Amino acid sequence: MNGGLTAADIAAAIGGEVRGDAGRAVVRIGALEHADGDTVSFLAQPRLRPLLQSSAAGTVIVRADDADQVVVRGHTALVVADPYRAYAALTRWWVARERPPEPAGVHPSAYVAPGVRMAPGVSIGPFAVVEAGAVLAAQVRVAAHAIVGEGVQLGEASCVHARATLGRGCRVGARAVLHSGCVIGADGFGFAPHQGRWEKIEQLGAVWIGDDVEIGANTCVDRGALDDTVIEDGVKLDNLIQIAHNVRIGAHTAMAGCVGVAGSARIGRHCTFGGAAMILGHLEIGDHVHISAASVVMSSITKPGQYSGVFPIDENGNWEKNAATLRQLHQLRHRLRALEKKSST
Amino acid sequence: MNGGLTAADIAAAIGGEVRGDAGRAVVRIGALEHADGDTVSFLAQPRLRPLLQSSAAGTVIVRADDADQVVVRGHTALVVADPYRAYAALTRWWVARERPPEPAGVHPSAYVAPGVRMAPGVSIGPFAVVEAGAVLAAQVRVAAHAIVGEGVQLGEASCVHARATLGRGCRVGARAVLHSGCVIGADGFGFAPHQGRWEKIEQLGAVWIGDDVEIGANTCVDRGALDDTVIEDGVKLDNLIQIAHNVRIGAHTAMAGCVGVAGSARIGRHCTFGGAAMILGHLEIGDHVHISAASVVMSSITKPGQYSGVFPIDENGNWEKNAATLRQLHQLRHRLRALEKKSST
Amino acid sequence: MNGGLTAADIAAAIGGEVRGDAGRAVVRIGALEHADGDTVSFLAQPRLRPLLQSSAAGTVIVRADDADQVVVRGHTALVVADPYRAYAALTRWWVARERPPEPAGVHPSAYVAPGVRMAPGVSIGPFAVVEAGAVLAAQVRVAAHAIVGEGVQLGEASCVHARATLGRGCRVGARAVLHSGCVIGADGFGFAPHQGRWEKIEQLGAVWIGDDVEIGANTCVDRGALDDTVIEDGVKLDNLIQIAHNVRIGAHTAMAGCVGVAGSARIGRHCTFGGAAMILGHLEIGDHVHISAASVVMSSITKPGQYSGVFPIDENGNWEKNAATLRQLHQLRHRLRALEKKSST
Repeated sequence: MNGGLTAADIAAAIGGEVRGDAGRAVVRIGALEHADGDTVSFLAQPRLRPLLQSSAAGTVIVRADDADQVVVRGHTALVVADPYRAYAALTRWWVARERPPEPAGVHPSAYVAPGVRMAPGVSIGPFAVVEAGAVLAAQVRVAAHAIVGEGVQLGEASCVHARATLGRGCRVGARAVLHSGCVIGADGFGFAPHQGRWEKIEQLGAVWIGDDVEIGANTCVDRGALDDTVIEDGVKLDNLIQIAHNVRIGAHTAMAGCVGVAGSARIGRHCTFGGAAMILGHLEIGDHVHISAASVVMSSITKPGQYSGVFPIDENGNWEKNAATLRQLHQLRHRLRALEKKSST
Repeated sequence: MNGGLTAADIAAAIGGEVRGDAGRAVVRIGALEHADGDTVSFLAQPRLRPLLQSSAAGTVIVRADDADQVVVRGHTALVVADPYRAYAALTRWWVARERPPEPAGVHPSAYVAPGVRMAPGVSIGPFAVVEAGAVLAAQVRVAAHAIVGEGVQLGEASCVHARATLGRGCRVGARAVLHSGCVIGADGFGFAPHQGRWEKIEQLGAVWIGDDVEIGANTCVDRGALDDTVIEDGVKLDNLIQIAHNVRIGAHTAMAGCVGVAGSARIGRHCTFGGAAMILGHLEIGDHVHISAASVVMSSITKPGQYSGVFPIDENGNWEKNAATLRQLHQLRHRLRALEKKSST
Repeated sequence: MNGGLTAADIAAAIGGEVRGDAGRAVVRIGALEHADGDTVSFLAQPRLRPLLQSSAAGTVIVRADDADQVVVRGHTALVVADPYRAYAALTRWWVARERPPEPAGVHPSAYVAPGVRMAPGVSIGPFAVVEAGAVLAAQVRVAAHAIVGEGVQLGEASCVHARATLGRGCRVGARAVLHSGCVIGADGFGFAPHQGRWEKIEQLGAVWIGDDVEIGANTCVDRGALDDTVIEDGVKLDNLIQIAHNVRIGAHTAMAGCVGVAGSARIGRHCTFGGAAMILGHLEIGDHVHISAASVVMSSITKPGQYSGVFPIDENGNWEKNAATLRQLHQLRHRLRALEKKSST
């Protein structure tokens, strides 16, 4: 835990104007609901405003028009334009202060092949493997049990967490974060059918990951069949996502957990995908398209907007009746049309 | 395989009354369909009763009213109140007898940081990593390639299987079992949007796992943003499940494979979730709620019961017609209402 | 990259008849869209025929009736019966030529238990673990960080990629490929309910994987409860798939990413499953059944054909209206029937 901090220190670190006691002690960051006097909290959503009346948080990051409500209760307000963003900055500053960076150097148990190029400040953890031809830029961190394949390039200050795996020839941009268990550059799923059997198509491309990309735990990004699978700058992928070969994901798109993207889909920039959304292959999704959780994209979508497709959940008995009827929906429409005709004559 | 056993030994181990030849040899446990005379089998579901007539199983665990059918065929019945539970107990006794526990001690290839506290009987496998500040209670097993992060606490007799990963500060209860490839305590998926980009919110909480929890292979449980993600006592999670940050899962709830739970969802006790069920974020599910496979929970459910929401599968041609009509369902209702009005005048 | 090749070399390697300049240099394999004069490409789908007019590919693998279009533009045609299959063969030949096989031998950092049996040509990578009683046939490759459990049998020329894990007693056929992070032989999800708690059923079976099977990254195949979980010859499983205990998958069936198969399902031969298809437990799927992506199989399917069940995606506002109406679909049918009766009187 960070010690000896005050509200003024927080303001100095993340910007904003202090209203009330600038010397108030800050010991932890917490949600308004669970705060005490030593907690710095934040109000991001207007609908949570009533919490300001009940919270014990000694310091609260707020927009200007919420400051009075904090100060009148004897607490300290830290006024910023965007409290949620300020909270994000606070967490980053907090962690940087609390946790010293991994010391540079190669753990004696790691295996680094001859000829690997490492810039200053690189840290390699226990039992990590770095294969021949890999190039690690300054401040790269390869944690315990991570595997950096042959010829892989890791950009400045990128972080390969414990047990993440990068296959041969993949390239990763600056400040990218690869979480534990992710597999970057396994073979794409490619087989030619022949007389009822599947014949392997070797996957000759690699994976290209841009700057500031984050890839979640146990997520998979397959290497391309011929060209590279591409994850552009600033993309954020949550856990247990499957990105098939030849996919391209546009910059600053974010996907929640359990999403699947089939081969050769091209996804635009600034899109969002709810958890378990599924995108079929060989289609195109434009910029600023937002897909709801558990929805399945079966053809291209070029118009920006929010799209959904989920069967509504219901008590099991109701669902059974409606689902059974759904299997006759087309006939129902015919029957309705027949009635309409009859009625109009 | 266990050798030299008789039906009487089985009864002594798991309880129950022997009817017929108590000295019958038992060499293996098997299903009624694939059994021979040396097999101990069980009848759990009344609908499978006809199998008693055809099975060659020499010993069968049954309820009292099924015993005669076994004995009359010259086989041995082991009468218990709950045959399925007795079978479960039998498998545990069988394995304990068959497989000696891992010998206590640290494999010479493992890396254990200075200052780790280990109670007696701890076993650490090849290439395992135990980071500084970790506390391992008695009889803990950390298998090959498992990673126990900084300050992690492992409860008595808990088992971290090969290649499971526990991030810094996570706590695990007694007798918990973490299967291969699971990732406990990766960062929750938290970013603040700013001018079309995503700014990282460091995740300051950890994961708290109760006693007797089991977590499946390649399942992920993310650390909380501020507080801990909590998996209460007795919860059973299957493989490839995603539990997002700040989720709380109530005691003795079970989830089948591929389930996803989005951030800050609060799930009750004694719930069950079929495979690939998806739970959206920031909602509440009460106790004794049962969600069918592949169903999506989009709002809170407080009333106990079974809930479903799945598009029924059909021959592709039928599905296409019904799905197309479904996109006009709202209009169909309007047309129906119009007809009703017309008809009632 | 392969150097010094000509179109004639390609023909010699994969068969087919050269039309045009057989001495044309070939430096890379590429798609028609991104090709240059040194590229060998292929035309597999008739609908892409227009690309032959625009592509700069110097050498193109085509069917006989497309050859003229290539040659007339001054390019070289390689005529085969099945261009896609020829492309697959080309990629395999290309990789075999480009990448020397891993040298046989055990990396000094690997842990191989006493008494493991290894045939000639076996290669074991850094930090791999091979437990007691394992049997590795000729040319087996166990890559970095892979774990081969107690008594596991690996067939000739099978490949266990980096960080793949095989639990005790599992058997793998010849030429099988297990990709990074897959977990073969974790415990099946088996518990007996008792007074609101779950009592562990130890899983006594193993996993049996046939010849020429490929299993994707982070995919899980659980061990059977009593008998083995079985993946027959030639099955191809993509990434992040969950195969529960006691499942049997028939030969040459293929499953795309994120599919889930629940316990004891029996799946036929030559089936295909689109991404994220879900198969419930204890049911049977016949041979030559094809399940569309994201569709849920809730009961047995014996008739060959294509089956689908997906809620169609739509603009969010439309979806909301249709989904709400869907919850009353059964009543709508009643109202329609009432109108029909009234109208027929």
